[in-house]
Amino acid sequence: MSSEKFDTVDIIRTKRDRGTLTPEQIDWTIDAYTRGAIADEQMAALNMAILLNGMDREEISRWTAAMIASGERMDFSALGKPTADKHSTGGVGDKITLPLAPLVAVFGVAVPQLSGRGLGHTGGTLDKLEAIPGWRADLSNAEMMAQLADVGAVICAAGAGLAPADKKLYALRDVTGTVEAIPLIASSIMSKKIAEGTGSLVLDVKVGSGAFMKNEDDARELARTMVTLGKDAGVNTVALLTNMATPLGLTAGNAIEVEESVEVLAGGGPADVVELTVALAREMLTAAGRPDADPEAALKDGRAMDVWRRMILAQGGDPDAQLPAARESETILAPADGVLAGLDALAVGVAAWRLGAGRARKEDAVQAGAGVRLHAKPGDTVKAGTPLMTLLTDTPEKFERAREALAGAVTVSPAPAAAAPLIIDRIS
Amino acid sequence: MSSEKFDTVDIIRTKRDRGTLTPEQIDWTIDAYTRGAIADEQMAALNMAILLNGMDREEISRWTAAMIASGERMDFSALGKPTADKHSTGGVGDKITLPLAPLVAVFGVAVPQLSGRGLGHTGGTLDKLEAIPGWRADLSNAEMMAQLADVGAVICAAGAGLAPADKKLYALRDVTGTVEAIPLIASSIMSKKIAEGTGSLVLDVKVGSGAFMKNEDDARELARTMVTLGKDAGVNTVALLTNMATPLGLTAGNAIEVEESVEVLAGGGPADVVELTVALAREMLTAAGRPDADPEAALKDGRAMDVWRRMILAQGGDPDAQLPAARESETILAPADGVLAGLDALAVGVAAWRLGAGRARKEDAVQAGAGVRLHAKPGDTVKAGTPLMTLLTDTPEKFERAREALAGAVTVSPAPAAAAPLIIDRIS
Repeated sequence: MSSEKFDTVDIIRTKRDRGTLTPEQIDWTIDAYTRGAIADEQMAALNMAILLNGMDREEISRWTAAMIASGERMDFSALGKPTADKHSTGGVGDKITLPLAPLVAVFGVAVPQLSGRGLGHTGGTLDKLEAIPGWRADLSNAEMMAQLADVGAVICAAGAGLAPADKKLYALRDVTGTVEAIPLIASSIMSKKIAEGTGSLVLDVKVGSGAFMKNEDDARELARTMVTLGKDAGVNTVALLTNMATPLGLTAGNAIEVEESVEVLAGGGPADVVELTVALAREMLTAAGRPDADPEAALKDGRAMDVWRRMILAQGGDPDAQLPAARESETILAPADGVLAGLDALAVGVAAWRLGAGRARKEDAVQAGAGVRLHAKPGDTVKAGTPLMTLLTDTPEKFERAREALAGAVTVSPAPAAAAPLIIDRIS
Repeated sequence: MSSEKFDTVDIIRTKRDRGTLTPEQIDWTIDAYTRGAIADEQMAALNMAILLNGMDREEISRWTAAMIASGERMDFSALGKPTADKHSTGGVGDKITLPLAPLVAVFGVAVPQLSGRGLGHTGGTLDKLEAIPGWRADLSNAEMMAQLADVGAVICAAGAGLAPADKKLYALRDVTGTVEAIPLIASSIMSKKIAEGTGSLVLDVKVGSGAFMKNEDDARELARTMVTLGKDAGVNTVALLTNMATPLGLTAGNAIEVEESVEVLAGGGPADVVELTVALAREMLTAAGRPDADPEAALKDGRAMDVWRRMILAQGGDPDAQLPAARESETILAPADGVLAGLDALAVGVAAWRLGAGRARKEDAVQAGAGVRLHAKPGDTVKAGTPLMTLLTDTPEKFERAREALAGAVTVSPAPAAAAPLIIDRIS
């Protein structure tokens, strides 16, 4: 180890004692961890010190840059058109990427949407699309470029070459209780998005029970940190803070979320999904230099649906295929007459996950048809004994644990309450 | 992992978020780490959270008990005499164990002194004794009992069976910047001492540049924590807070510290070494029920020396053998006329270490003859150009780095300053 530029224990001690890491120390740390010269147990101790003692703006920026430098960077300049991407911090029923990517591409903005699979109670965009027969998530860089040039939108898996340091670090944070560090969350997300090479980026930072960030202050800090990181790296970045107290739309699962997305692309769909899709599309189009585009019209007149169909076809999927349906279902009834005042996002997310829509370990498979279909949203009038939601799974032994997750998740009031806004704030 | 009683990440998060671990969680944590069900990276994150967020008295006590339970416990009740042990947190020139163990044994108190080898700038008791030709540190439990019955004092290596969780944990803390956590230091020391089975224990908690604890507040907290742990476990425990701003005695090394110890056993030796040896002996004897014993007399009249000789002989050593001497020496001269006001303990310790008295890695060998011999102590009058200290090594290329360590370590003043007391406080 004597040939190394820094001593790992010195670096850990510096952060432990509330010091500031130098740019050279940060570059070395990320590089040394990626090549194995810093051991997992050392990085775990450093991560916990970062979680508890924080990093300043320069440190976070350098940490992010070092993770980008650990891998390849994509370059879409050959496309000759602006690029825009969206990232959501994850929520229950969050299928927005599915209608959003083709919708923005309608206006000549390329959307290179690198997405992930789900872990835990929030579903993964790729898991959802894989419910479509034939559709494949893994594209080569050349295939991705060709599809962006031709169709204008692509939703695919991030290659292993982007920010490999982040992949290794995320797996470590997952088992060491160090996921919830805002500097590490922000640098993890932004290193991949910046390495991906998008010209503009809209962040959907969710706050509420079903989101990673449970309170608004943390969500706001995360949003600000990421916007700063994006701008510092020359990416035109804006964030919306959005409500995740209750699920988005009426579905949480894989195939059923694709169905709902197609409804939105057909000009229908739940009001909240439409509202957020249009709001994020406007932000992406404005950031990409198309402030006059009218995304609402493109949902109504079929142009977005047209791009969707071409996007699914280009990746081997059949946009007309029947989607898999769950073999078993159970209905949950409204407990009382009144107005549905609350429907807890986390409870619904955990129920969908336990029904088979999500995975507990990376290597688990998901059920395409599993999930939760809602028959009412907060604000709707409900009648005791009528269906409130339907639980869907291929494996009926899962119903019991799903029902357990939903205990206490539903609130019915005699009178309507003021509705919480879906879009809480905009941070730029 | 589903058969495990607790989830490791939950436990890490609890401590990360300033919560309190339950007794069951602590027992499981230590057991699971010892058998490998908690990974090193998880324990490293937990240790950093403990370092930064602390543990309360019940948590520290249970953590210590769980480490004791991870291994065997010794039992000296068959000896039919009281037992007393001493532990020092480590300092430069700290050879006190060598004269102390036989001195206390003079009065019929058995001294089962399990010691370690040195790592870093403070020497190890076993390294010092191994300078004596033939002497061996490794005894079986039966040999140890026989020697305690016969001679009354034994200084030997701790077997691998005592607190194996601590061994694994200490190695992890060493590489993850988590050594400096008072709850972890206290439980590490006390788990071994309690498992060792001594009836009473005197702690020498050192404070100053050459000690592990650089400031008095930390040293006091460590002392209080350890005394509480000892008492909670039924061990009669007391601590002295002692000054480690300057080396103890006139030697820092292996063979040269044995020589100085023998001078003390012969009724001579440096005043500070004698003072501390006698003070610690009084504490041990009082704690073991011999408050009227007169250790000063036993140094003067040869009784302590007699036990020393029998103790060395019992472990294969020749108490009359010529000790190894360094092949090379260099002298450092006093820089000015005046009173030696300061002689930094850490600098002398690092110099001795670099000369070969200590090791940088566990597997390194030490030089028996290497070290630093002082010709003056703080408070002494010195004359410019006369010898202040002698550097000793078998490998002359080490002189340069040793001299570097000593840069700025010596302060000469025109007038005498008030001497700092050697024994700062007593905590019981």
